[in-house]
Amino acid sequence: MTRTVIRGGLVITAAEEVWADVLIEGERVVALAATGSALTQSWTADTVIDAAGQYVIPGGVDAHTHMEMPFGGTSASDTFETGTRAAAWGGTTTIVDFAVQSVGRSLREGLDAWHAKADGRCAIDYGFHMILADVTEDSLKEMDLLVEEGVTSFKLFMAYPGVFYSDDGKILRAMQRCADNGGLTMMHAENGIAIDVLVEQALAAGHTDPRYHGEVRKALLEAEATHRAIQLSRVAGSPLYVVHVSAEEAVAELAQARDKGLNVFGETCPQYLFLSTDELAEPDFEGAKYVCSTPLRPREHQAALWRGLRTNDLSVVSTDHCPFCFTGQKELGRGDFSRIPNGLPGVENRMDLLHQAVVDGHISRRRWIELACATPARMFGLYPRKGTIAPGADADIVIYDPHAEQVISADTHHMNVDYSAYEGERVTGKARTVLSRGTVVVDGERYLGRPGHGRYQSRTTCQYLI
Amino acid sequence: MTRTVIRGGLVITAAEEVWADVLIEGERVVALAATGSALTQSWTADTVIDAAGQYVIPGGVDAHTHMEMPFGGTSASDTFETGTRAAAWGGTTTIVDFAVQSVGRSLREGLDAWHAKADGRCAIDYGFHMILADVTEDSLKEMDLLVEEGVTSFKLFMAYPGVFYSDDGKILRAMQRCADNGGLTMMHAENGIAIDVLVEQALAAGHTDPRYHGEVRKALLEAEATHRAIQLSRVAGSPLYVVHVSAEEAVAELAQARDKGLNVFGETCPQYLFLSTDELAEPDFEGAKYVCSTPLRPREHQAALWRGLRTNDLSVVSTDHCPFCFTGQKELGRGDFSRIPNGLPGVENRMDLLHQAVVDGHISRRRWIELACATPARMFGLYPRKGTIAPGADADIVIYDPHAEQVISADTHHMNVDYSAYEGERVTGKARTVLSRGTVVVDGERYLGRPGHGRYQSRTTCQYLI
Amino acid sequence: MTRTVIRGGLVITAAEEVWADVLIEGERVVALAATGSALTQSWTADTVIDAAGQYVIPGGVDAHTHMEMPFGGTSASDTFETGTRAAAWGGTTTIVDFAVQSVGRSLREGLDAWHAKADGRCAIDYGFHMILADVTEDSLKEMDLLVEEGVTSFKLFMAYPGVFYSDDGKILRAMQRCADNGGLTMMHAENGIAIDVLVEQALAAGHTDPRYHGEVRKALLEAEATHRAIQLSRVAGSPLYVVHVSAEEAVAELAQARDKGLNVFGETCPQYLFLSTDELAEPDFEGAKYVCSTPLRPREHQAALWRGLRTNDLSVVSTDHCPFCFTGQKELGRGDFSRIPNGLPGVENRMDLLHQAVVDGHISRRRWIELACATPARMFGLYPRKGTIAPGADADIVIYDPHAEQVISADTHHMNVDYSAYEGERVTGKARTVLSRGTVVVDGERYLGRPGHGRYQSRTTCQYLI
Amino acid sequence: MTRTVIRGGLVITAAEEVWADVLIEGERVVALAATGSALTQSWTADTVIDAAGQYVIPGGVDAHTHMEMPFGGTSASDTFETGTRAAAWGGTTTIVDFAVQSVGRSLREGLDAWHAKADGRCAIDYGFHMILADVTEDSLKEMDLLVEEGVTSFKLFMAYPGVFYSDDGKILRAMQRCADNGGLTMMHAENGIAIDVLVEQALAAGHTDPRYHGEVRKALLEAEATHRAIQLSRVAGSPLYVVHVSAEEAVAELAQARDKGLNVFGETCPQYLFLSTDELAEPDFEGAKYVCSTPLRPREHQAALWRGLRTNDLSVVSTDHCPFCFTGQKELGRGDFSRIPNGLPGVENRMDLLHQAVVDGHISRRRWIELACATPARMFGLYPRKGTIAPGADADIVIYDPHAEQVISADTHHMNVDYSAYEGERVTGKARTVLSRGTVVVDGERYLGRPGHGRYQSRTTCQYLI
Repeated sequence: MTRTVIRGGLVITAAEEVWADVLIEGERVVALAATGSALTQSWTADTVIDAAGQYVIPGGVDAHTHMEMPFGGTSASDTFETGTRAAAWGGTTTIVDFAVQSVGRSLREGLDAWHAKADGRCAIDYGFHMILADVTEDSLKEMDLLVEEGVTSFKLFMAYPGVFYSDDGKILRAMQRCADNGGLTMMHAENGIAIDVLVEQALAAGHTDPRYHGEVRKALLEAEATHRAIQLSRVAGSPLYVVHVSAEEAVAELAQARDKGLNVFGETCPQYLFLSTDELAEPDFEGAKYVCSTPLRPREHQAALWRGLRTNDLSVVSTDHCPFCFTGQKELGRGDFSRIPNGLPGVENRMDLLHQAVVDGHISRRRWIELACATPARMFGLYPRKGTIAPGADADIVIYDPHAEQVISADTHHMNVDYSAYEGERVTGKARTVLSRGTVVVDGERYLGRPGHGRYQSRTTCQYLI
Repeated sequence: MTRTVIRGGLVITAAEEVWADVLIEGERVVALAATGSALTQSWTADTVIDAAGQYVIPGGVDAHTHMEMPFGGTSASDTFETGTRAAAWGGTTTIVDFAVQSVGRSLREGLDAWHAKADGRCAIDYGFHMILADVTEDSLKEMDLLVEEGVTSFKLFMAYPGVFYSDDGKILRAMQRCADNGGLTMMHAENGIAIDVLVEQALAAGHTDPRYHGEVRKALLEAEATHRAIQLSRVAGSPLYVVHVSAEEAVAELAQARDKGLNVFGETCPQYLFLSTDELAEPDFEGAKYVCSTPLRPREHQAALWRGLRTNDLSVVSTDHCPFCFTGQKELGRGDFSRIPNGLPGVENRMDLLHQAVVDGHISRRRWIELACATPARMFGLYPRKGTIAPGADADIVIYDPHAEQVISADTHHMNVDYSAYEGERVTGKARTVLSRGTVVVDGERYLGRPGHGRYQSRTTCQYLI
Repeated sequence: MTRTVIRGGLVITAAEEVWADVLIEGERVVALAATGSALTQSWTADTVIDAAGQYVIPGGVDAHTHMEMPFGGTSASDTFETGTRAAAWGGTTTIVDFAVQSVGRSLREGLDAWHAKADGRCAIDYGFHMILADVTEDSLKEMDLLVEEGVTSFKLFMAYPGVFYSDDGKILRAMQRCADNGGLTMMHAENGIAIDVLVEQALAAGHTDPRYHGEVRKALLEAEATHRAIQLSRVAGSPLYVVHVSAEEAVAELAQARDKGLNVFGETCPQYLFLSTDELAEPDFEGAKYVCSTPLRPREHQAALWRGLRTNDLSVVSTDHCPFCFTGQKELGRGDFSRIPNGLPGVENRMDLLHQAVVDGHISRRRWIELACATPARMFGLYPRKGTIAPGADADIVIYDPHAEQVISADTHHMNVDYSAYEGERVTGKARTVLSRGTVVVDGERYLGRPGHGRYQSRTTCQYLI
Repeated sequence: MTRTVIRGGLVITAAEEVWADVLIEGERVVALAATGSALTQSWTADTVIDAAGQYVIPGGVDAHTHMEMPFGGTSASDTFETGTRAAAWGGTTTIVDFAVQSVGRSLREGLDAWHAKADGRCAIDYGFHMILADVTEDSLKEMDLLVEEGVTSFKLFMAYPGVFYSDDGKILRAMQRCADNGGLTMMHAENGIAIDVLVEQALAAGHTDPRYHGEVRKALLEAEATHRAIQLSRVAGSPLYVVHVSAEEAVAELAQARDKGLNVFGETCPQYLFLSTDELAEPDFEGAKYVCSTPLRPREHQAALWRGLRTNDLSVVSTDHCPFCFTGQKELGRGDFSRIPNGLPGVENRMDLLHQAVVDGHISRRRWIELACATPARMFGLYPRKGTIAPGADADIVIYDPHAEQVISADTHHMNVDYSAYEGERVTGKARTVLSRGTVVVDGERYLGRPGHGRYQSRTTCQYLI
């Protein structure tokens, strides 16, 4: 087995900040030892990585990506190959993507299709959530099987009637099943039925620009659906994970539920923390670049999101990475905002944007790692392999330079999309060296990874429940 | 014009308690004057009613009745004739009943049908709300017409899928229309889609007794729907009136909304204040007598309802009078609680039960009148004709004996139903003399009314909005 | 007995709006009768007041005034003679002023002193609250006697250490006594101990201008004291009335308490509704005109106050009338804001400013009367004599012209103070004719009142408690 | 340097659970390495501790003890020698005790006195908080010096007037100083002024038994003071740590503050989680054993405390260890509960009782360590030396047997007190071997420690603030 030592860095995990050297044998971390001790000086290794002046952090875990996702007659522009490569560049070493059940088809069929897309193509490790688009007696039974084979989380939609939407009865049934089999219900919480009325009215009134996407998908309708999902989960006796929370009012619903001690968790994404309806209102259809659902909110909502990240009413920051090129894809919605494919690129930017939040004083360093690595790993049953640096854990490690300066741009990013949502944004901090299961996949400006290195991760059930 | 004087009583309205004589000319109150003054002693009258030692109160306004209501293959057992007569016996002089739109039919057709049922048969005055069972472009337009002709409130159902149920999009559209035309949206707030899943599961598990009606219609699902209705009304910019609130958690949602200053109002009914799941669990199918929706709740919820009545988070007490005989009607649900017709008798008992609440110290005398007379009259645009005793108001007046003792029983009540929900309940207080528009319709043990005396009341829009 | 008839106006009370003529015999209202009825046309009278096109409203009840109040080495500039005359001009026909116990002296002594100041001098009726400045075994016992003789409310101060301040133990004892004797505790809720630290620090830092008065008396310290007073009243089992609420955060504490169904009531004043720290920050010491405690708040707080008035979390609008002339009095605090006498003139302006709030759509006409007349009368045991127009009530009546335009100014007001807090403010509406116990005291531009017409009012205990 | 290896245990920290061997050199942890790896097998050591089947956890940090504390004319019965020895037996390897300023004396003098008591006598490491009993200009200045020398937290009392009590002005000043110097304000939050009134009234009524101690120290008065402390800390701009929270209503105040994102923290103690007013009401003066302040609450409060521990509204579990013998000490209060010395023994029992909470399903294993070790260490500036097991940390480690059964009893405990508050309580789990800075101080049933091994710990400021 090859041995690697990372020397002299500040090892940061969700709970610790220690000056320690890290010893890796093969794919796993074997030991952490005090930097400068006689012990570590005796260590020999095939590879020695000098991390002096750097942070040594767990590789990022992005629990919400949509590679090659079909949506609105097109597909997300990143394949598993391009998307996971970009993730690696950005210091993320695990993604959990969403396999999709088609209406009228089995979960198995959907999951197999997603396995086929990812198998042999990923640069980093990956797992799958399952989108339930058709809750039936059969698909309910299949859920148990999926949990057993490591697909332990199921996404439901209160939005997108006619596509992914499930009514409250179907949601309740799926949640009841999760209460039995240990699965975690993930919820896209927007009242899609009401929103569709507002969409129709907006279009009828000639309001076709991208910014109306933000106006019709009202914060109150996100909060409403969040509250409803919480109540349904209480009736079912199951835990709940609300994805891509963007509205202050929705955070308030989560806070209220969590104060009651309920197993309710919230996720937000960098776009809600750093962008707003200001971008969505950019002229000349530029706003289309920022169309995603839940939508960007007025800038005032950001303070509530940052607060939620500190109070743990929001526990995870994922990307909801679902890129569509401006040319040819976003443009499908010229003249009708409702036809703009929903989604933003971001899998490469998350770790850096959150480090910027550390620099800006929004969160501490440990909380950065907790939000971006440790909690998603535990939430989705990847711990202790992923999300931390500890003896026995997978050697998914990033040597992170906290002083590097960079400007985010489509010119330099590695995602397969023709624009960046954060074009021109200066951030401090950058992944310098990235290891995936002990293998260096990014080293400075060199990419050393390969399709197929990434391995499918069977997941246990959520580790946050008592 | 005939002149009537009511002498020597304590006139109680929502705001006043005064020793005054009341002069009636024809159908209207002309004057109130200090009892014993030279002025009143000079009054001559065709009829002098001695109210010494009695309360003189406005006739009750019951804003929620269902006479001859078709439900589950049968019809409510009180006709407009029998039901309004019973109301009069109980000191209620105005009802607002619900005309029903059938799916696929116009509002007009439904309203005409209800006019036909009521016309010439009512003992007391009556108005109509309209149940929207089929929200379409056409029915939305019809709403404006109905508002103009005095049907200014529209009931929607989040319960009863396949029957009265409207989805959130239809609800939103109807609320938007009300925001424009001044109509008041009334909401049956229960998540019927989720409840139907629980009903199916309960029956599949062999849980067929009436008490399971209470178990499947969960308090959380009432609270959920209440919250959802509130949020939808905020999106629409329209006021909201939530009918038959029974769960503590639903009261909390109303309180939270009202603290924000929203135009959101709550109604409860005597059955929720005086009965509980204890009755619903009575053996030998006796529980069926207490099957209504929202359902009776565990006794602990009552404290929250009484508190809500004091804090004005609940503003109205109506009956939801919808009686079905135990024999032949309630019995339709033997072996399947979901087939028990939903509804309870009560139009005759409301004023007395609420007076008992005064005796018990739950509410003050003025609040009794406010909840039972003044607020429903104002809420539904009947004021100043109804709900108070003032110069110019209709002479709907009850001489109420606060010391009379009675035992409620099917043996003595006047509703056309073979049981009483309050059988054996002792209450203090009783309507002694009842005037409807100046005419004595009940005098002690004599009924002096007649079908057709009651006149249809065109209503203005809600008077509580700023 | 002289007879007066007021003809043709719209009689507005807390609960009714009726076109009625009002018959007065001597000092009392005898009857209300429908305008235009044969009955009223038969009425003969010594005086007929034509109220066509006018409102006929109860005279205002100002439950919070400080005539001739000693404060900071000077005294409020209105005597009972000048202050009650100004009140009458403004449509207020009853005041409840504060008698003051001096430290080391008995309640009796203080009350006698205030009786001596008021006796024979008042233009309108008046009652007294008692300020407890020295809670001892003796003064606790005296409270019972005062309740018996009609002084049924007791004010305590959490502010003004060394002057009126009572510590929490004294407050608790006084509240316990009220729990027994039916008295109502009124609270000046500001944490004076903490504020005095901030005052000292501000002055030490050279912050001597009037605006620092607002900065040191922080909203959080009003909210804190409000919460504390509520908790103490819960421990004592007594009701609580919080005077001059000005901070949004304090309203929130009241709302939370009232949602629990507690007997907690809040009062605000016109200055908090119409003025803000903008005035307090006026240059050249002009801000001193607006120094009162609780202080004026940033303009953003006003929305919460208006909302509180609508939700009834604030139940009364009084003036806290306590005028000091700018010249010679307010000027005592040049160079040291803490020496500026605390208080504003307003007893003459309240009814008009609140009518302006009707015009502006903040409150309804009935709510205007409820806040300014009916509720203070009931809260402080003056009902049914005061606060309404009903048979048997005192004929304290204002013929109010809702269309009159006026500009508030020290040039035209009748208060004995050299400036107006509302100088230049245009308002719509004006008292045209004012009757006190049947006597016309103001008629258009003529003042017909006289010192000594006003009579001391013994009060019953608070009428809002169940 | 001596080398110790702990082999084969499950290392549990606040964030991790890993099977790892721990290498200690001298007083520090040098490395953690995967159990069974070639690396660890190559390790040689002077001492090898077999931890197979055991937990390897950080030594407990008890942030709230009162050794030899003078109170009510007597002193806590544990000296630093006996108390720290007992702590070690119970798996606690650091205490933070309270040095006391006497009124009229300097902080320095108090701190020196406590150093003198502890120096050379402690079995385990220790630090000091400072009790501010006399907030003056001088003592405020001294605070800065103490922070610099590692006494970084200051306790204030809203209770105990005449002894430790500070009024709100003094509290505000001290908090302001902490806002500047980084100190953490710790608060005993009970309204002592109001409580003293209730004490006096209870005694006057002949209510002298221990249970009245619980009745007069009302939950509402704890909640009140908690709210007040929070508001004062907001005014001061300083963080706040509320000690020994026992009432559900107080937890609610903390939850509300933390939802706002404030730097407000709560501590509770095992006695509030496991005992209640049932014990306080034990006859024959036995209840005196359970007299502490805040007092034990009715059993219903426990659920809120457990929930608070899960939601992190309560962040630390300390003991408030302050033992008084029943004979001769608690007995001082026979016939007058107010003379019973306030305090309970517990420093030896905390780790075991909290492990029992793990067994009972109240908290997870990681949360156990977080509450008892990691958070107190970070809260009070002892991290990374204390509270975790990581390279570079002090080797304060407990080999904990999760399956051992024990019965808590004064017969077997090592605290110098003649009773146990948990007498007869069966718990699962026991510290088997305890290391303090690399030295085994407890090994099974053998005590190997010595007075003076424990070293004073200078502390940094609170590590939870952003």
